[in-house]
Amino acid sequence: MADKLKIGVIGAGRIGKIHVENIARFIPQAQLEGIADIKLSSEQESWAKAMGVRIISRNPQDLLKDSTINAVIICSSTDTHADLTIAAAEAGKHIFCEKPVDLSVPKVQAALAAVKKAGVKLQIGFNRRFDHNFARIREHTLSGGVGQVQMIKITSRDPAPPPPAYVAVSGGIFLDMMIHDFDMARFQADSEITEVFAAGAVLVDPEIGKAGDVDTALVTLRFANGAIGVIDNSRKAVYGYDQRVEVFGSKGAAIAENDLPNTVKLYSESGVTSEKPLYFFLERYKGAFVDEMIAFTDAVLHNKAIPVTGEDGLADMYAALAAGKSLKEGRPVKIEEVK
Amino acid sequence: MADKLKIGVIGAGRIGKIHVENIARFIPQAQLEGIADIKLSSEQESWAKAMGVRIISRNPQDLLKDSTINAVIICSSTDTHADLTIAAAEAGKHIFCEKPVDLSVPKVQAALAAVKKAGVKLQIGFNRRFDHNFARIREHTLSGGVGQVQMIKITSRDPAPPPPAYVAVSGGIFLDMMIHDFDMARFQADSEITEVFAAGAVLVDPEIGKAGDVDTALVTLRFANGAIGVIDNSRKAVYGYDQRVEVFGSKGAAIAENDLPNTVKLYSESGVTSEKPLYFFLERYKGAFVDEMIAFTDAVLHNKAIPVTGEDGLADMYAALAAGKSLKEGRPVKIEEVK
Amino acid sequence: MADKLKIGVIGAGRIGKIHVENIARFIPQAQLEGIADIKLSSEQESWAKAMGVRIISRNPQDLLKDSTINAVIICSSTDTHADLTIAAAEAGKHIFCEKPVDLSVPKVQAALAAVKKAGVKLQIGFNRRFDHNFARIREHTLSGGVGQVQMIKITSRDPAPPPPAYVAVSGGIFLDMMIHDFDMARFQADSEITEVFAAGAVLVDPEIGKAGDVDTALVTLRFANGAIGVIDNSRKAVYGYDQRVEVFGSKGAAIAENDLPNTVKLYSESGVTSEKPLYFFLERYKGAFVDEMIAFTDAVLHNKAIPVTGEDGLADMYAALAAGKSLKEGRPVKIEEVK
Amino acid sequence: MADKLKIGVIGAGRIGKIHVENIARFIPQAQLEGIADIKLSSEQESWAKAMGVRIISRNPQDLLKDSTINAVIICSSTDTHADLTIAAAEAGKHIFCEKPVDLSVPKVQAALAAVKKAGVKLQIGFNRRFDHNFARIREHTLSGGVGQVQMIKITSRDPAPPPPAYVAVSGGIFLDMMIHDFDMARFQADSEITEVFAAGAVLVDPEIGKAGDVDTALVTLRFANGAIGVIDNSRKAVYGYDQRVEVFGSKGAAIAENDLPNTVKLYSESGVTSEKPLYFFLERYKGAFVDEMIAFTDAVLHNKAIPVTGEDGLADMYAALAAGKSLKEGRPVKIEEVK
Repeated sequence: MADKLKIGVIGAGRIGKIHVENIARFIPQAQLEGIADIKLSSEQESWAKAMGVRIISRNPQDLLKDSTINAVIICSSTDTHADLTIAAAEAGKHIFCEKPVDLSVPKVQAALAAVKKAGVKLQIGFNRRFDHNFARIREHTLSGGVGQVQMIKITSRDPAPPPPAYVAVSGGIFLDMMIHDFDMARFQADSEITEVFAAGAVLVDPEIGKAGDVDTALVTLRFANGAIGVIDNSRKAVYGYDQRVEVFGSKGAAIAENDLPNTVKLYSESGVTSEKPLYFFLERYKGAFVDEMIAFTDAVLHNKAIPVTGEDGLADMYAALAAGKSLKEGRPVKIEEVK
Repeated sequence: MADKLKIGVIGAGRIGKIHVENIARFIPQAQLEGIADIKLSSEQESWAKAMGVRIISRNPQDLLKDSTINAVIICSSTDTHADLTIAAAEAGKHIFCEKPVDLSVPKVQAALAAVKKAGVKLQIGFNRRFDHNFARIREHTLSGGVGQVQMIKITSRDPAPPPPAYVAVSGGIFLDMMIHDFDMARFQADSEITEVFAAGAVLVDPEIGKAGDVDTALVTLRFANGAIGVIDNSRKAVYGYDQRVEVFGSKGAAIAENDLPNTVKLYSESGVTSEKPLYFFLERYKGAFVDEMIAFTDAVLHNKAIPVTGEDGLADMYAALAAGKSLKEGRPVKIEEVK
Repeated sequence: MADKLKIGVIGAGRIGKIHVENIARFIPQAQLEGIADIKLSSEQESWAKAMGVRIISRNPQDLLKDSTINAVIICSSTDTHADLTIAAAEAGKHIFCEKPVDLSVPKVQAALAAVKKAGVKLQIGFNRRFDHNFARIREHTLSGGVGQVQMIKITSRDPAPPPPAYVAVSGGIFLDMMIHDFDMARFQADSEITEVFAAGAVLVDPEIGKAGDVDTALVTLRFANGAIGVIDNSRKAVYGYDQRVEVFGSKGAAIAENDLPNTVKLYSESGVTSEKPLYFFLERYKGAFVDEMIAFTDAVLHNKAIPVTGEDGLADMYAALAAGKSLKEGRPVKIEEVK
Repeated sequence: MADKLKIGVIGAGRIGKIHVENIARFIPQAQLEGIADIKLSSEQESWAKAMGVRIISRNPQDLLKDSTINAVIICSSTDTHADLTIAAAEAGKHIFCEKPVDLSVPKVQAALAAVKKAGVKLQIGFNRRFDHNFARIREHTLSGGVGQVQMIKITSRDPAPPPPAYVAVSGGIFLDMMIHDFDMARFQADSEITEVFAAGAVLVDPEIGKAGDVDTALVTLRFANGAIGVIDNSRKAVYGYDQRVEVFGSKGAAIAENDLPNTVKLYSESGVTSEKPLYFFLERYKGAFVDEMIAFTDAVLHNKAIPVTGEDGLADMYAALAAGKSLKEGRPVKIEEVK
């Protein structure tokens, strides 16, 4: 392969822009060749021009058929991910695809099959694996610092709920929100989830309940290696984005607390006050968005293993589907049941 | 009632000695009148004499029939708690009884009935409600600081497992260890547990598994007020006694971290190191043992409500039994099923 | 010596009561034999009776001439310390004397001479050496954890200033307040102070300025071993008693933060709030008051070295006097100048 | 002025590169027009070309005489700062100059006079004012959160000493290292330093002593507004870059701790371990380097006040010179003495 990865980006929304700017700023070994968005606004067009890209288009095919481009980043709407992944694979492009690949298991399987057949690389956008805190926990686990992993605890709470209309089409709390945590759980346990039990409640917004979803959830996990775990989600933590992970084992525990915007404490008559956690994922995972793209670029350029594969995305999805089934049926559900 | 509570202590083991010494040191409104232990050693007898108590005996009846004594503290072996509670109630004594009252629900019910009939007060030794950290969380909840309670998370890990022989007679992890956490959960939620789901594993000591118990457990909770919760237990945290509580609600979260023996941090080339948490319950709940006794003395002397009632003890026991049933049957269990 | 230290306490004020109650509660190897206070109130008399002491008197001589008593604790008013120390030494009693021995160097020297001549032990009440945090720092230094000591920083701020009338007779901020910090500095440096430079200001209460003192001070220190240091004092920290120590050396730094009443943090929309430091010395140094008395008892009973000697008290006083001279003359002052 | 600031950078060493890359990545309202370095290597030339700048030269005059360029950033060697500042001012360019402007007061004064005469803006590179922690402290002070400022404490320790050869030409610890802290002190006090007293020692490297400098220093400060302060410096903290600031006042204290690379704590049998502070200024002040340039760009483009003026740089230098004189003469020195 050439010494630089030539990248096309499909989808110029919020996350697409972040990837584009991160590549331009921080990844000298990648070259941005094109941006395509089927609803490209004049504002987006101006921005793309300012970024100096060669191809600006409303048709993703313009990127796929360009022979210079080696890899595409798919950040268009979720319902287009699977088809674009298949098309990109058939065009011989390596693929970075935002999560989820799709909300339907057969479509995801079809996409993975196409990727496999084409022999291209596929990385899924589970950015949290690259977070400085969670990556450090993983190091402690790998180095033996926590011994045999026995328990994993993940707290993941958003600062504010999405609109109920979004909730209805998002696949629900397990496929839309907790799927990140299932991925983190598998990552930290270094083992597959085999069974889940979900407890959920509508405590934040009754409209979310009317849309058929819950906004507060606790899911118990069993892993193939014998460890157990728990994930808690809330759609609304008034104090900001609450993202904590704890791995407990035979030799100790590694615990990651939230990131704060600064270290200042104000001591006054009424107590000691510090800042709230960083507001939301754009702030908290700023560095992780860069690092996942560096990892993708590096894996493709130097033919290394992809750090978050399509199979990971599928396994996370099975866990989410099992959690949904568990909540609905009020019983623990084995992953095998939803495959 | 007189201006001082006249107390007899039944059982001169480790916890009995702590209560006796706490009363002598810190509770001027209580007067220690007698100590009885059916297996009183000569060493215990010397100690009791040094404490200056009037009655030293191998027969608890000597305390129950003494007309000066108003209240007894029952810290003998668990299998005697229910009978002694009944006998003390019939003798008109107020009762502080260590947990559990018994491992059999009918015996507990009989004891509570005797207490009710006699019109005496009964406090159960769930000392953690009096811990400075957990009491502070409760204050934040009561003052509205966390808003409507939505989720409760409790971590409770021992520094080292008990001998497998003990595990066999203790009633198991839920009745022996997690029962403290069920009580804490009900205390912080200010609501009854209605359903539990237990996940457990034998990860610490295979002998515990052979004894028919687990040593690692995660229990999901549902409360009558709609909140959900989770408790995690391990029989062995190599870094010491891990006792944390988190209450999450519509206006925020109150989180209690572990107590450390000192605040010193050592900054060196290899990192920043601080102390492990306090070793075990005697160190961590030192103040709570005093405060629960002050509360009992105060409630009896001034005819106030008892802060941890026999009904609390029974409700905690139902939760523990339901958790055991859940683990055995691999399904969520409603509290109603075990009543 | 007998297996128990027989103690008489001179002075039944606030600190005298603390020592008496600590001995009764926590030091089984000590026996309280008598309490004397020249202004003993009927309330104090009742309290002393309740403590069960044998001699209750308005005349300290009643303790000094009692042949059973081995040791006295002097907590009467400062102006009586030196004379009582001399009298106790002449009576062959070991002595624990509250700081300062006197505000006059010759009187202190006379007291130390009497102690030396009598061959009794004398411990000065610099309780902070026994604080769990500061003692831990010392352990890190002794074990080589910080390497060669290069810098010592001490923050010591009171929650509220004393009445200006007290300031006038107290000897001023250096002899009354910072003397504890000079002792801590010498303790942590394991070296003598050789020179000081004092900067001071009246920023808290103009009345303190009118009384000829400052209420805010920063003193730079030089030690015989080459290290340098700084102490800062304020008579008023609205957030409570601020007591921190930092030792910096060739291998790292050991830093003690304040003690808080509990570990709870409240996360809310307005930030994360925790408790203020413990209010004042009675709360913060509760354990240190016990531990200094245990150390004294142990040193006398088993003929061990006294942990805070009269010579320490004198050296601390020289530092305080040099600081006062430095502030007055606006120049660094060598300790030799005030000897 | 145009809607974009057209910038030329003089000096393509480590700090010059950082400014260039920060402008390219993060400051869309600035346009990099040229880079000049009198010793431009072929490697630097390639880099400059890759950055897409119009003028690449070994002669700073090529930037000064270019009519498009509005502003220059001076990051060449210290001995050229004053002359380049004068030349840039005469060429009508706004100036961002790295600290120090010069080690000679008359040369600095001449540069400031040229700037004044030309009516251009001059910002000095005291980047720490823009640090997220220290800026937050300043906000607390400005908002009244700490009340009247009474005491300022600054800790500033490098991870490793510079080569002794550098020390000799750097101007010494006060002009080279502590000058940042004098600036921070004036910034946080919002008041001028009026007197200093310096204590220093050679404890890190005897070669530094042979070069006529100290490597460990404590400087006491007096401010015009009555506050007092202290700065401590060490050339070597084995645990990394130690950068802390504390402002204490009538209503409380604002305290900034070090930044850590992540929040993970490892709990093990041997204690609780977290990461060391970020290694050195490039890591710790990464964001501050960006923010100072944003502030400069904004001040020039919109004719706002410069946040760190030449007069600030001169005042910081007077404090450093007074500290040097104080150390040499062993007495407090008034700033007036060195003007």
